[in-house]
Amino acid sequence: MTNRQQILAKRPVGLPDQDTWTLTETEVPALKEGEVLIENHYASLDPAMRGWINDARSYIPPVQIGEVMRAGTIGKVVDVNKHPKYKVGDVLTGWGGVQEYSVTDGTSYYPVDTKLVPMPTYIGTLGMPGMTAYFGILEVGKIKEGDIVVVSGAAGAVGSVVGQIAKIKGCTVVGIAGGADKCAYVIDELGFDACIDYKNEDVAAGLKTHCPKGMDVYFDNVGGDILDACLGRLRLHARIVICGAISQYNNKENVQGPKNYLSLLVNRATMQGMVVMDYAPKYREAAVQMGTWMMEGKLKSREDIYKGIENFHETFLRLFNGEKKGKLVLKIK
Amino acid sequence: MTNRQQILAKRPVGLPDQDTWTLTETEVPALKEGEVLIENHYASLDPAMRGWINDARSYIPPVQIGEVMRAGTIGKVVDVNKHPKYKVGDVLTGWGGVQEYSVTDGTSYYPVDTKLVPMPTYIGTLGMPGMTAYFGILEVGKIKEGDIVVVSGAAGAVGSVVGQIAKIKGCTVVGIAGGADKCAYVIDELGFDACIDYKNEDVAAGLKTHCPKGMDVYFDNVGGDILDACLGRLRLHARIVICGAISQYNNKENVQGPKNYLSLLVNRATMQGMVVMDYAPKYREAAVQMGTWMMEGKLKSREDIYKGIENFHETFLRLFNGEKKGKLVLKIK
Repeated sequence: MTNRQQILAKRPVGLPDQDTWTLTETEVPALKEGEVLIENHYASLDPAMRGWINDARSYIPPVQIGEVMRAGTIGKVVDVNKHPKYKVGDVLTGWGGVQEYSVTDGTSYYPVDTKLVPMPTYIGTLGMPGMTAYFGILEVGKIKEGDIVVVSGAAGAVGSVVGQIAKIKGCTVVGIAGGADKCAYVIDELGFDACIDYKNEDVAAGLKTHCPKGMDVYFDNVGGDILDACLGRLRLHARIVICGAISQYNNKENVQGPKNYLSLLVNRATMQGMVVMDYAPKYREAAVQMGTWMMEGKLKSREDIYKGIENFHETFLRLFNGEKKGKLVLKIK
Repeated sequence: MTNRQQILAKRPVGLPDQDTWTLTETEVPALKEGEVLIENHYASLDPAMRGWINDARSYIPPVQIGEVMRAGTIGKVVDVNKHPKYKVGDVLTGWGGVQEYSVTDGTSYYPVDTKLVPMPTYIGTLGMPGMTAYFGILEVGKIKEGDIVVVSGAAGAVGSVVGQIAKIKGCTVVGIAGGADKCAYVIDELGFDACIDYKNEDVAAGLKTHCPKGMDVYFDNVGGDILDACLGRLRLHARIVICGAISQYNNKENVQGPKNYLSLLVNRATMQGMVVMDYAPKYREAAVQMGTWMMEGKLKSREDIYKGIENFHETFLRLFNGEKKGKLVLKIK
């Protein structure tokens, strides 16, 4: 049985080009005792993956040249060699990578029930992006009822959940997203109070209109000029959650530092970085809460699914050119 | 009786030139009932004053053109008109401004005992700079025994106290200062473990040598490249105290944003701004603690005193050209 894999072929400078990964075929190895073979149905495509292929010290070791591209996945167990816990037909989610089949002893995988929600949701709102949103806005952003919350990447996998949780908690929520379509989705479908279209509006002016008193929390997924615009409108004791900086990930030179950072001093504000893995012991609790909100119709989840492992590169680019809505997912099998 | 005053004449672009303030003479007004006349002996010169003369929203209203330059002062009561609390000869510290005499009803002034420490110390280590250091390193930096603490402006009024408090609390302390003389002072007199001379050494290399495991706390008085170098060597859950950014105060264009700010994300670190006035209700408690440390010989205080209200401008520039050691003080009377 052959296994198609997307292998990291080189370290890109700037936006990854089509030679960054190579699609290769290899034989699926025989299972050793205690191993399972998983057929990967879906891979999660996330902006953070851009960071994982840089040769730099970070919160996780870089993917090495020649290795399968790292990705969160969900799939079905199709073969088992005396595994103590899993059997054929079980659905597992974990770090399967961008490949058709993964062999694992089950470490860092966990089983899910697809009768409750469909597979892609387990790598979206109930997966890493949803967990990032949940712990980021609640534990780092420390929102409370009445707070004014601004979130960038508001139509995306993380931002859409951040804003919905903030609404559930009684906050006023202003999104920032690219394009009228996404803004309409954010307001009409997700229930945000307002949304600024950064592609067609001046963000600072939009914040002045929609947050006349400033903001208590800014959840930053993008960095760059939008981070600076938000720094310019902080309230006293505001919290900025640094979750990502998608506008900077493909820079060929330096990251753009926030030139308005002294607003932290003026407003006695805090800027704090987060990495979702730190909250792993509490994922289950968050999944129960978010699952409940989904059942109650308070939390909506949307995946944008593209087919074919051979289309990984062009699908991946949708993270950066804005051509996707909600959680970006690659259907592998 | 005439009163010489330094009046803000214009808003400077970049480093204040000699026309920024005008020395004027005016008559001391007659005291109304409940007022006292204070002869200002010393004025505190601080980097923050550069910010107060910009026409920008900040933590305190800007000094207006035509107003006496704001400054913390200490002086003696020389006349009283039925004040309920103060009598001639009392020594008061407060916001007297850069002028020989101040008339006040006593609001926001408080009396001090110069038998315990000399006048300049009350506007230095027991004044705003010392309070900034105390609350900044303890309440924002949240140091604990064994922490590795880095402080810039280490020979200055705030930095010197920050580092000494961190040593008292059992931390390893690395200073950053400009010039071999200042570094020797920081190590030999103040007892820091090491000091990097940013004028003659590469700061990033120095941090690698002196903080091989990175730092838990960075107390930032300077901003710019030194902030970036420190961001590059954070430990997990590090705290950066944003106290000031002296390298940026005289910029003619934008502040230089910290391009390494995503180290906050990688290291789950926090960058938090502070303003000392927020801690006013606890100044007394801090003064008692710091006074005790001074008596015990654990906390050293050094003031660099220049004479003459007419020399305010050239003395003020010493804050930015590095030509002073410890707390910069102007002797007025």
